[in-house]
Amino acid sequence: MTLPSIETVVIIGSGNVATHFARAIQKTGKKIIQIYSKHPNSAKLLSREVNASFVKSIKEITKNADLYILAIKDTVIEEVSSLLKIGNNLIVHTSGTVSADILKKASSNFGVIYPLQSFSKDIPVDWKTIPVFIEANNKENEDILLTFIKNITDHVTVMSSEKREIVHLSAVFVNNFVNYLYTIAEDIMKNKQLSFDQLKPLIIETANRIINDNPGNIQTGPAIRKDKKTIQKHLELLSYQKDYADIYSFMTNMIIKSNKTK
Amino acid sequence: MTLPSIETVVIIGSGNVATHFARAIQKTGKKIIQIYSKHPNSAKLLSREVNASFVKSIKEITKNADLYILAIKDTVIEEVSSLLKIGNNLIVHTSGTVSADILKKASSNFGVIYPLQSFSKDIPVDWKTIPVFIEANNKENEDILLTFIKNITDHVTVMSSEKREIVHLSAVFVNNFVNYLYTIAEDIMKNKQLSFDQLKPLIIETANRIINDNPGNIQTGPAIRKDKKTIQKHLELLSYQKDYADIYSFMTNMIIKSNKTK
Repeated sequence: MTLPSIETVVIIGSGNVATHFARAIQKTGKKIIQIYSKHPNSAKLLSREVNASFVKSIKEITKNADLYILAIKDTVIEEVSSLLKIGNNLIVHTSGTVSADILKKASSNFGVIYPLQSFSKDIPVDWKTIPVFIEANNKENEDILLTFIKNITDHVTVMSSEKREIVHLSAVFVNNFVNYLYTIAEDIMKNKQLSFDQLKPLIIETANRIINDNPGNIQTGPAIRKDKKTIQKHLELLSYQKDYADIYSFMTNMIIKSNKTK
Repeated sequence: MTLPSIETVVIIGSGNVATHFARAIQKTGKKIIQIYSKHPNSAKLLSREVNASFVKSIKEITKNADLYILAIKDTVIEEVSSLLKIGNNLIVHTSGTVSADILKKASSNFGVIYPLQSFSKDIPVDWKTIPVFIEANNKENEDILLTFIKNITDHVTVMSSEKREIVHLSAVFVNNFVNYLYTIAEDIMKNKQLSFDQLKPLIIETANRIINDNPGNIQTGPAIRKDKKTIQKHLELLSYQKDYADIYSFMTNMIIKSNKTK
């Protein structure tokens, strides 16, 4: 049996994820026939960029696409998908935290394509390096999605909603929380007229190290050394900003504690 | 007037920083005449690697080197330097947090060479990308150190002890604390039989982004979106490990709060 192949796609959404999906899909030679978004301006721009039709109303969305990709906020996936009239065509969302089942009401063929990356419209991405996690309501749809995504990246893994949630949660630690620590460091430097640029080589090196090394094995710094004198000095330097002193204490105590339990 | 040039070096210490300094200095063609450390085995190994003499006792350290580099723990810099008999030869330490003045008793010519990088003996480093901060007791010594370090890297900045402390403090946030977040993520993934490898492309991308973008401008995730539903779900997923739930709450609240004050 030959699997049906996805040739035509409708994208719902025009934000960061929708934009990068649209660009990637267009490069594979598949046809994006329509783009709908509740933000008409960005949807128009994106439609033009990838040679798709822009549709103003959800009612104008065609019934005849092979795949519908919902790249919209987690909180509106259920509502928007319930408004679609797409028969039993295949529909997916792109969320890390929302279960696949939420799409049941929209179609009997449904799934998830979750790319593990933090997208911004203006920053080009190299899809070949992005892990993508897929899930579908049955094996056939899983295979259809696998074949489709392999045009974009080889890093595809079939994964349950339950495990995808864990990946998303972990991503919050290594992406969102890490970026917030960068922001704090930038602010601490700026407060003494120092340039954040000075920290960039260390930031890059810190990330690159985990390619070959387990992060638990390469922990350094005053906390793991239990260097109380330096910790005390750092807390004094941070006394001008209670929040930063608090986060310093909190992280330091966690590192000391984790080392004890090893 | 021609500045005296550093041709001969003694290294005190044989840990990660001492090792990378020794390797870098040897490459410049300068002569490392002696290496002393209270860990004789690693000092012997390093001496052999860089063609230096290994000395067993601090009393055997020569009086005739152009530069003495103390690459030892912050807490022993004062004690070890006070035991040296080096006349008025130039001596430096390599610490981010210890002031230069601590070396006053060892010699009237003193300073600091602080490389902003997290070194491990086994991981090669590209010195050309490492920012190095120097300080000296007077302009002439500053210039001597500048000339010397420029053989190793062009990223050299003259910086006071006070500002160097701030750089070191910021480095704790972007290196030590960030690495600890990686460790937590690895543990969360492992707990559900998921591989940390899946997170690596996101980790690299998160670091690379700050090269061109201000981290404060690219904060994403449930906290900045005030996505209470996802935050609640994540806290439930972390309920098996109170420390991780605590750090999640703490960071999330900080991000929400920082966004409000903007």
